[in-house]
Formats: sequence, C-alpha cells, structure tokens
Amino acid sequence: MAVLVVGSIALDYIETPLDKIDNALGGSTTFIAIGASYFGGTVNIVGVVGDDFEDSHIKLLEKYNINLEGLQIVKDEKTFRYGCKYQPDMNVRDSLYTELNVFEKFNPVLPESYKNDSYVVLGNIDPVLQSNVLDQLKSPKFVICDTMNFWISIRKQELLDVIKRVDLLIINDSEAKELSGESNLIKAAEIVQGMGPKHLIIKKGEHGALLFSDGKIFSAPAFPVNNLVDPTGAGDSFAGGLAGYLNKTDDLSYENLKLAVVYGSVIASFCVDKFSTRGIEELNEAAIQKRFNEFKEIARF
Amino acid sequence: MAVLVVGSIALDYIETPLDKIDNALGGSTTFIAIGASYFGGTVNIVGVVGDDFEDSHIKLLEKYNINLEGLQIVKDEKTFRYGCKYQPDMNVRDSLYTELNVFEKFNPVLPESYKNDSYVVLGNIDPVLQSNVLDQLKSPKFVICDTMNFWISIRKQELLDVIKRVDLLIINDSEAKELSGESNLIKAAEIVQGMGPKHLIIKKGEHGALLFSDGKIFSAPAFPVNNLVDPTGAGDSFAGGLAGYLNKTDDLSYENLKLAVVYGSVIASFCVDKFSTRGIEELNEAAIQKRFNEFKEIARF
Repeated sequence: MAVLVVGSIALDYIETPLDKIDNALGGSTTFIAIGASYFGGTVNIVGVVGDDFEDSHIKLLEKYNINLEGLQIVKDEKTFRYGCKYQPDMNVRDSLYTELNVFEKFNPVLPESYKNDSYVVLGNIDPVLQSNVLDQLKSPKFVICDTMNFWISIRKQELLDVIKRVDLLIINDSEAKELSGESNLIKAAEIVQGMGPKHLIIKKGEHGALLFSDGKIFSAPAFPVNNLVDPTGAGDSFAGGLAGYLNKTDDLSYENLKLAVVYGSVIASFCVDKFSTRGIEELNEAAIQKRFNEFKEIARF
Repeated sequence: MAVLVVGSIALDYIETPLDKIDNALGGSTTFIAIGASYFGGTVNIVGVVGDDFEDSHIKLLEKYNINLEGLQIVKDEKTFRYGCKYQPDMNVRDSLYTELNVFEKFNPVLPESYKNDSYVVLGNIDPVLQSNVLDQLKSPKFVICDTMNFWISIRKQELLDVIKRVDLLIINDSEAKELSGESNLIKAAEIVQGMGPKHLIIKKGEHGALLFSDGKIFSAPAFPVNNLVDPTGAGDSFAGGLAGYLNKTDDLSYENLKLAVVYGSVIASFCVDKFSTRGIEELNEAAIQKRFNEFKEIARF
C-alpha cells in the first residue's frame, strides 16, 4: 500500500545560535516523505518546485524510493523559499522571510495512479487545498492532517471543514489552545475533538506528544535531546514516521496507533540531531528499532 | 520508620479565575506531610505558626497522624501569610503579598525523637536553614530537597552547599534552567547533577516529571487534568507522596525510585482538583492505587 503526501517543498535558510545553512532541502512534504520511507511501501508525493530546485535534491528524494510522479517542476520560476532564525532558547524561532514563489499558485493535482492511496498525509498547506486533495481520492483509509496557527487565524472555517473529514489531526500545543480558545490543554483537546477528527495528536516538542482517541489518552515521552541542532522539520518527520508505520502495519487499533505515535517520535528525535533533512538521512531499521527501545525504557515503570 | 518534613506552614489567600479562598491551610510542610501520610509510617514535622493558627488546622494535621512535637506555636505573633492570584492560564500566578510574620525568624530545632529519622524532606525554605536541619540529623538514609528561584537568586552559594549533601533534588523546569544557566532542559539537568545531588527530579507541571539517576532518565507522564481548580501545593504534594512511598518501601533502587515518582505524581494529581489541601484530604489506598493504574495505562505502549 502507498502513503500519499501533499504539502510544501522548500529551500530553507536556517540560522541557529551555533551554525547556519542556506539552500537546504525543506518543506513539510520532504520531511514527511523521507520519514515515511523507512517503513517500506510506496511514498507518493504531490508538490511543486521551480527550476532552481537542484538535481541533487531530486536524487536525494529518489534515493528514498519516493515517487515523484506528482512533482511539478515549473520552468522560469523559483522554488518556495523560507528563512528563519532560532533564538538561544530554540523553542522560539523568528521568521526572516517567506518567498512563496511557485508555491503561491500551488494546485495539487493527483496523478491517476495516486487516487487509490490508502494512507494520506495532508501537510501544512491552505485547508482549501487540503480539501481539494480529499476530493480527488477514491476511498482513503486513513487521512492525517497537519496545520498551523497561520491557517487557524485566516482560514478558520475552511480548516474546520477539512478537520471534519480527517481521521487524525496533528497539531502542537499552542495551535490546540488557539484553535479551541482554551488554555488548559486537556480541555482544549476535548474541544478540538468535538470539531470532528476521529483521533487527535497534540505535539509538545521537548515534552513529547499526547494521543486522544475514543475517550482514551496516551502520553508518549520525548527523547531526551541534549544537543538540539535544528528543530526544523521535527513535526513533519513525526507525521511521516507515524504514517509510514501505519501504512506498513495497516492496523488502526488504539494499541497500534500508540506505537505509531512512538515511531513518529523516534523519527522526529533523529531529525533534530542535524541540520535540514540530514538527521533523517541514512537511517535504517536497526537504528530505528534501537531508538524505539530507548523510548520504551524511558517510559517504563 | 519516619519521614521528617521541615518547611513552611502558611495561611493562604488564593484567587483563581473561577473562585477564591482565604485563610486556607497552606505551606510546603502541610502539603508534604499530608501527602506522605497516606503511605503509613510516622510523619514528623518541624514548623512554626502564630497563635492565629486555628485549632481546626491543628486537628486536620492530627487527623493524618502527623506528629506535631516539632511544631512551635508562638504567642502574640501571626502565622506566615501568602496571597496569590492565578491568571486565566493557570500555569502563571502573581504573588499578591508575602507576610513572613513568625516565619521570618524560623529556626528549625529538631526534637530529640526526630534525630534518627531516615527519610527527610527539606521543603522550600532558606538553604541555610536546610543545612542546619541536616546538621542536627544523626544518619539520614535519604534526604530530599526542594527549593525555588528566589533562593537560586539570593542564596546561590548556600543552596549549592546544601545540594551537595542531599540524595534527591526536586526542582521545576524553570528553576533547573535558572540554576544551570542553560535553556536546554536535558543539558540543564546534566549541569545540575554535576552540582552534587545523587538523583534529580525536574517537575514540568502539566507535562509530567523527569527523573535523572545514574545516567538514566525516566519520564513520568502527567495526569490529564481538565478541571484544574488550584495548583497550589502540587509540587509539595508530589514530594510528600514520593517520600511517603520511599519510607514505606525502604527500597532505593532505580526501579523503585521510578515508582516513587509516579506515586508523587498521583498525590499531586489529586491536589490540584480542589482548593488548598482539600484535594489531598480524604484519600485512601484504593483511590491512590486506582489513580496509579491510570498513570500506568496512560504511559503504556
């Protein structure tokens, strides 16, 4: 079975207190797709780039067996570019610039061969486009949706429309509070669940993640990271690992969803270890399983 | 065996977005002692109050078999009084007033019968007094120390002196960052461990707690509280439950320390459910064990 990933593809400038990188491969699609690729099966992506998108980036995606049939390369246009700078407390980042370029007119069109995909990840893009993607799918089995505070502010109704149609909404704690208008996280989660998604995950960065499902709550620990190099893409890697694991196991029980949350956390814990996508490159099953066991040990009592 | 608790005893004014209470029993000693009392064994307290301390408060402490031999009641003086107001986001509170009164000259003197106590909780007081308590003890088996950012700011050296002598330091995440000068929590924990305590617990409020011990890390989940009534005393209840459980089991292995962290979290989860000490009154073994099992279920995968 295949995982379908629709989101952004970007070239990032990232500055941290210790280092910086420019023209780095980024965007939600990139991190989700590479994260999902480690669990076998096909990963189909839909995205758009300009002709400044280097061949080395294409080769990198192909190396992870990511199917690029849905990748549009627009001539004489530039790829979406994003620049940000992390503060000494790396939980806080300031955007430096957002050049939408070719991404401004992004209209995700699914190749015929994608329309039967079972596991779908709607990366953080305009909820109108997320709905368009759902309209093109024949009978998706499990739809995962990410979003951000920007869309909560300016596309609230469209976001609410798409949330109703998804199986799993993944947001972070501040987005949950903003979407619900409630500062208590558990109450916020109850309100967001009332908006329609079958399951809800609230990511809490260095504090792990919470899964809300059918009246039950699972608290996944965070991996203790003492050398945070670059948090960019951590949330997307999380969604990718989670989707890849679900696609591989094809088991939507609560017990297996919990494992998917931990596998997502595993991939995210590798992501923050290096700049850009480097942290999630060159992984393998043994490294992933070893980290999974470390998560188990951290939470066991 | 006995748990010795030394800290503050206060009469609190507490205002939350929904309600308020005045002349409520508070102070670290109170919450620690009641929390510890549920695990059997003797709880010996040292503290000071004025003659405005109501008989009903004395009776309440006696009801939990708390030994008051070390309680000084000073005639014609007032009990320590503290007032605070919680903001709508109840993670934030503003102090309204701090009237030290009789607590200003507090000099903890241990009754002879306390000097052989094995498990000791040094509640959040001047580190100079914490050291004085340690000097009076014959051969404590396990010393737990709490503190706060106030002492980190104005009594840094004295705090470092006492930290070196304790088995377990319990602080919250912002205190860990302030004490270490490091914003990454895991790195902060490594630095604080280097200051001498055998074990370290970092409390993260709604995000649970981390235990650092001998190069290992345990992440305890938080109980999902959707109706936070009053967070006052949660940290002290945590320390009390933890100390009570250790005193009962008298097992200082890492595996048992992890269970102690969870039992501490259990008591704290009850504490925030009602105003003042009411949340940790009228508990029993069955309720505590039921909540412990809920914690297990939340973290299990």
